[in-house]
Amino acid sequence: MKFGGTSVADPERIARVARLVAAEARKGHEIAVVVSAMAGKTNELVAWTDAAGPPADGIALNDDEYDVVVASGEQVTAGLLALTLRAQGMQARSWMGWQIPIIADDAHGRARIEAVEADALGAAIDGGQIAVIAGFQGVTKDGRIATLGRGGSDTSAVAIAAALKAIRCDIYTDVDGVYTTDPRIEQRARRLAKISYEEMLEMASLGAKVLQTRSVELAMSQRVTVRVLSSFVEPGDMSDTTGTIVCDEEEIVEKRIVSGVAYSRDEAKISLLGLPDHPGVSSKIFSKLGDANVNVDMIVQSRARTSETANMTFTVGKRDAARSMDLIRSLQTEVGFEHAEVDEDVAKVSVIGVGMRSHTGVAKTMFGALADKGVNIQVISTSEIKISVLIEAAYTELAVRALHAAYGLDQIG
Amino acid sequence: MKFGGTSVADPERIARVARLVAAEARKGHEIAVVVSAMAGKTNELVAWTDAAGPPADGIALNDDEYDVVVASGEQVTAGLLALTLRAQGMQARSWMGWQIPIIADDAHGRARIEAVEADALGAAIDGGQIAVIAGFQGVTKDGRIATLGRGGSDTSAVAIAAALKAIRCDIYTDVDGVYTTDPRIEQRARRLAKISYEEMLEMASLGAKVLQTRSVELAMSQRVTVRVLSSFVEPGDMSDTTGTIVCDEEEIVEKRIVSGVAYSRDEAKISLLGLPDHPGVSSKIFSKLGDANVNVDMIVQSRARTSETANMTFTVGKRDAARSMDLIRSLQTEVGFEHAEVDEDVAKVSVIGVGMRSHTGVAKTMFGALADKGVNIQVISTSEIKISVLIEAAYTELAVRALHAAYGLDQIG
Repeated sequence: MKFGGTSVADPERIARVARLVAAEARKGHEIAVVVSAMAGKTNELVAWTDAAGPPADGIALNDDEYDVVVASGEQVTAGLLALTLRAQGMQARSWMGWQIPIIADDAHGRARIEAVEADALGAAIDGGQIAVIAGFQGVTKDGRIATLGRGGSDTSAVAIAAALKAIRCDIYTDVDGVYTTDPRIEQRARRLAKISYEEMLEMASLGAKVLQTRSVELAMSQRVTVRVLSSFVEPGDMSDTTGTIVCDEEEIVEKRIVSGVAYSRDEAKISLLGLPDHPGVSSKIFSKLGDANVNVDMIVQSRARTSETANMTFTVGKRDAARSMDLIRSLQTEVGFEHAEVDEDVAKVSVIGVGMRSHTGVAKTMFGALADKGVNIQVISTSEIKISVLIEAAYTELAVRALHAAYGLDQIG
Repeated sequence: MKFGGTSVADPERIARVARLVAAEARKGHEIAVVVSAMAGKTNELVAWTDAAGPPADGIALNDDEYDVVVASGEQVTAGLLALTLRAQGMQARSWMGWQIPIIADDAHGRARIEAVEADALGAAIDGGQIAVIAGFQGVTKDGRIATLGRGGSDTSAVAIAAALKAIRCDIYTDVDGVYTTDPRIEQRARRLAKISYEEMLEMASLGAKVLQTRSVELAMSQRVTVRVLSSFVEPGDMSDTTGTIVCDEEEIVEKRIVSGVAYSRDEAKISLLGLPDHPGVSSKIFSKLGDANVNVDMIVQSRARTSETANMTFTVGKRDAARSMDLIRSLQTEVGFEHAEVDEDVAKVSVIGVGMRSHTGVAKTMFGALADKGVNIQVISTSEIKISVLIEAAYTELAVRALHAAYGLDQIG
């Protein structure tokens, strides 16, 4: 069972979480609980590290000490939940990353878990004790605290579920499952009973912030069955059909062609006009952006109709847009394009479904539905199980609703 | 160097502390710094543990998890100070109790340090790195976090100074040294250049809250030279005569008969009248109080003039007064005293000095000075280097000033 920051934001909510955990334990389950820091605490801690200032010249990177400070938030929650479980009559104890240990690499602030040495942890659980584990943290081989990056508690939970060979990893969050699309946009959005790892990965990478991408990758590679459900569920209302199960495609009996419609407004479109049409041009541009850690997403290149030059369009994250334009302009003389422009008034809308692998006509349905509503498609990109289109931002809701209806997603359930 | 909670209460004060540490390091000193939690943080954390509620019947004590929660405060400060030192151009890293390790017993919440295994720590310092150590915490043999109790960071600092064979342990606090008496009561109070461990112990146990008693005991047994000084000193104003040195009696050349006048308003006087005068009576009473962890201090027994019964008077801490009276009344039938009463309107005033061992007349001077001011002495107790009197609370300031003058303490310096 994993609970995020809003679920453990204060002593009352921690008591709520303890009741949920106790109810599951009383059903006879052996339980490990992974907790995040109380909502707001991580931000407070990060602000203090910022106030310390950047390291002086010649001094080693800050990130190891950043981790020391920030990891304290999960330590507090783990101790408090263990105390609260005992107050409710349960045997419980807390475990820090270094106590288990959860071995992480030394990429402080965004470390990856290398191993979970779960023998002592498993023995304690077998002994009848609920294990309350500080999420988001591990320990390096040198004995330093390392954090996994924002949202890393999901990854902690999946890694521990894998190490303990748990029957399931339940991620409690502020939504009651994974939906066919954002219910704030489409009221007829339906909760999915099951979704495949691959689909969940696409959803996560497209901005549906239910699970951290890395946690889904890990669940897929370790074959951990994950359940997404609401931390506001009452213990008495819990059943096997609560929430959404994220699992292997083969465990989903009723296959759908499309499982969901996702959208993201975090994109910016960059267009380069009048590019010389010879090899190596795009390589120069994308190397420059890649070296600066700018993630480039959708890319389209086309020859301009009336000349020997080409045009190129691609998307980057909105927060990288200004920086990307500076980098590109610094290449103007070398590369020799005529004009570069950025458009932040765009949105990416995607349909996702493992059924696309074996079904044709998915794209046709998508483009038809959008055309019917007069939505102009600026860029298209596809993967094996996803089609994404870039459109003008103002059409986002209209497009999402049109696609949700076109694939019959309001009929699921 | 050890800094308490008010010295590291926010990023600005941590930056101040970093400047003090950096200045000492630039003089060529190798430095370990011990820090407390930011002022107020420990109280916040304790309040959260209280909110969790008491453990249910049959569930193990809370104190191990209390320690997990509360120890996080020092972790935050240690990380932040290491970051801030780096921002000021110094090499630094933080050390948690479990990383050094500081081995503590498992008396959670009030653990004692059993060993400081300082090899790795010492090697890091020898390598040119300032060690920033989370105070107040250790790790048990089972790998659990244990805290040393309130004020335990002083003890951490002394233990680490001993393990590293440091030339001195500088305790930075909100006063600039140890005074002949409380300067808020007597403006002519003088800062002592040196004070012996034994005198400091008596001062600490009498409520002069400069150093935690256990830290002074440890300094005495390990022969660690301690210096008490203000954390508000400017780096440029630091010299060998800053603050007060706490050291072995033999290192103090100019011996004084009396070094200081201390007082405490935390006492309550309990009187039992008409006690049967036969053996075992006082044993019954003090066993009862001892079993309930009530600390009994000054004791006087006297035979009543006109009968075969005795009267007995003793003091307890004010916070234990009501509980003590309940315990005593529960013994009334068994012991057979006539009447018990409590008086909380009292204060204990003490004169302290190692010179008492070899000088007579100290008590005579004390009683004379108090008699001159019309201060009535209710109870007297003495140790080898201390005389304490219990008086009516209203006379506290008058008595302190009279004794300060009587022993010429305003002439020191």
